[in-house]
This record gives sequence, C-alpha cells and structure tokens, in this order.
Amino acid sequence: MKKVKKNMLPENIQNLIDQFSRLPGVGPKTAARLVFYLLSKPEREVSDLGKAVLNLLPGITLCGSCYNFSEGSICSVCADDKRNRSLIAVVEEALDVVALEKTRCFPGVYHVLGGVISPINGIGPDDIRVNQLIARIKQGDVTEIILSTNPNLEGEATASYVKQKVDETGLGIKVTRIARGLPMGGDLEYADEVTLKRSLEGRREY
Amino acid sequence: MKKVKKNMLPENIQNLIDQFSRLPGVGPKTAARLVFYLLSKPEREVSDLGKAVLNLLPGITLCGSCYNFSEGSICSVCADDKRNRSLIAVVEEALDVVALEKTRCFPGVYHVLGGVISPINGIGPDDIRVNQLIARIKQGDVTEIILSTNPNLEGEATASYVKQKVDETGLGIKVTRIARGLPMGGDLEYADEVTLKRSLEGRREY
Repeated sequence: MKKVKKNMLPENIQNLIDQFSRLPGVGPKTAARLVFYLLSKPEREVSDLGKAVLNLLPGITLCGSCYNFSEGSICSVCADDKRNRSLIAVVEEALDVVALEKTRCFPGVYHVLGGVISPINGIGPDDIRVNQLIARIKQGDVTEIILSTNPNLEGEATASYVKQKVDETGLGIKVTRIARGLPMGGDLEYADEVTLKRSLEGRREY
Repeated sequence: MKKVKKNMLPENIQNLIDQFSRLPGVGPKTAARLVFYLLSKPEREVSDLGKAVLNLLPGITLCGSCYNFSEGSICSVCADDKRNRSLIAVVEEALDVVALEKTRCFPGVYHVLGGVISPINGIGPDDIRVNQLIARIKQGDVTEIILSTNPNLEGEATASYVKQKVDETGLGIKVTRIARGLPMGGDLEYADEVTLKRSLEGRREY
C-alpha cells in the first residue's frame, strides 16, 4: 500500500505528507488531506505557513524565572508588574500556562516543571524542575504554591512530591491543590467514581 | 479571551498557531498543541517541516492529460506504459486518485474534474473540466468511462451531467458508475435508507 502511494505521488507532496504525519494526532489520511488543501491554495499562503514554521524556534527561549516559553530572558507574565509574585502556580507544561491565563482570573506567576515524575518513562524528580522551584522559593517572599499538575496518577504523584519538597524548606509556605470534581456542564450520572469521590471530599459550604 | 492569548504568547508562537488554525479540521486548541509539540523538538526536525512546506508548490504542475498533480508535464499514472488508456475513471479531486490507486486494482487512467457542479456555490459545468474530458475522448480510443464522483447530491448531479455529455459525442462509449451500497464491515441495521435502497438496486447474482 505504502509503495503504491510512494511511487504515485510527486516527491514534494509525499515528503510533506510524511512530515505532517509525524505531528501528534495527525495520521497519514489527515496529513494527505492537509497537503492537498495546501495544494489548492495560492503560493503566498503556503509560503507564509512555511516561514512561520521556520521562524518558530529562533528567538524563543525559556523564561529564566518560570521556564515558560519567552521571547526575552523573562516571559511576559513574569515581566508584568501587576502580577502577584508571592503566588506561584506549578504546572506541567507551557500549554497549561496558556489554559490558566485564559481564565483571566489567576493573579500570580507560574512555574513550569517541564514534565511529570513517571518511573515507567524513566522520568525521575531530577528530570523536572523541582529543584529550580525550591531555589526560587528560598529567594523570595512566596506565600502560596498552587499545585496545578494534571489530576491523573502521574500528576498527583508529582504534586505530592513537590508538596513534600516545599514543606522540607521549613519556610511554612501554604501549599494548595487545584480542585478536582465534576466539570462544569458535566453530569453526575455519567461521572466516574473517582471524580465523584473527589467531588464529595472537596465539597464546600454553600 | 483572544486578547489575553495574543498578549501572552511570544509572537512567533502565536503566528504559527494562527497559521495552523487555518488548515481544515484544525481548531485553535489543536493548533496550539501542534505548535507546543514542535517547540519540544530539535531545531532540525522543525526546519525539515518548514522546508517541506516551502518546497511543496515549486515544481508541482497539473498533468496535461488527466489534471492530476504531477512533477512533469505528464503525471506518473499517465506516463505508465502498463496503464489501459481506453478506461478512464472520472474523479472529483486528486485525492480521489490516491484513494483509487491504493486499491491496486484499477488498470486504467484518470480524469480529475477539479470539483463538482454545485449551483449553491456558484460552480457550473464550465467551472470543472468536463470539456477537457470530452476533448480527450474525441482524440483517442476510449471504450469506458467510470464515473467515480462522490455518492452525494452534487457528485450524482455531476456524474449525470458527464454521462449526458459523453453520450452527446455519439461515439458509443460505455459509461458506468461505481457501485453504491453497504460499505464492507457495515451493518444493515444501521444503514440509512438511501444506501440500503441503492444496495438493493445494485444487487448482483451470487
């Protein structure tokens, strides 16, 4: 099957299909659809996309403070005077910063771990940026750490490890965890039991 | 929401998210996931993708015979001596050629219409390559035309129009239509009535 395709399509087309297929969630069929869509577009539009890809990495660094992606040595959140530097949300990835920023209701700053502790994938505590977080805490006037790792096995384990490390500093910093419970618009009837259990445990006075 | 995102992300990142979002089936969330995936990759891989996009259009032309995408003046199918030139499958798009080639059981050549007749979208018979097909038929020893447009309203209308035009040539060329019926692995119980009706009409001796 592959052979017929390879022989049949012009090299440039097959090459881009192969490249797109490497992206997460993009299979060969989707990749082919994307490429044939581009083939129907004016040269200008396609070259804009190509240039945007080539321009992605140059100039992008990691923020020296929170390890978010940044154009300068400090990212736009850390550079913002209005942010509350005593409140740090610890997240797994830079994409989580985007998600939290969209809520428009987090006044603090971030710390991007760059992964989660995952023994099965050979990722230990020293492979993520926990030590950098602790160093950061020791420097400044941090009052609260909001553990915002994902509510799954690895995210919970990582949150638990970070909590332990923060406690070990002896600075008496408050450590909180984002609420786990029923998602808005969700349905009690269809919720899994772990979510429902967390939802009961996390109940608040009404 | 949009504003926060725009301000927050480095320009190169936001620019590529915007570019990816224009692709069919790629929303802003998927686009962001793709871009952050690329940000985690080595520079080489990202530039390979960028170059593949930039290299897509240069050198790609339409085949002078069947209007499939081609590297030269004639596409690889039309250039193949082993193909039966008296049998032409008429398809809507170049992607349909890829789909039919994958079956490995079509010995003929193609004709890519480049669309379907669709009054609602302002696409008339002269906007697709029917005249070119008729000119091609008049030139050579074509014995059969297989109408392989999609089995939907516009595809059927286009097939019907092409059939009429081929008949008008008075060359007595056989015109067939690909079978419509239950897809393999499908379930009679869940099939829609139009498909089932076609499936009955198209029954063959067993």
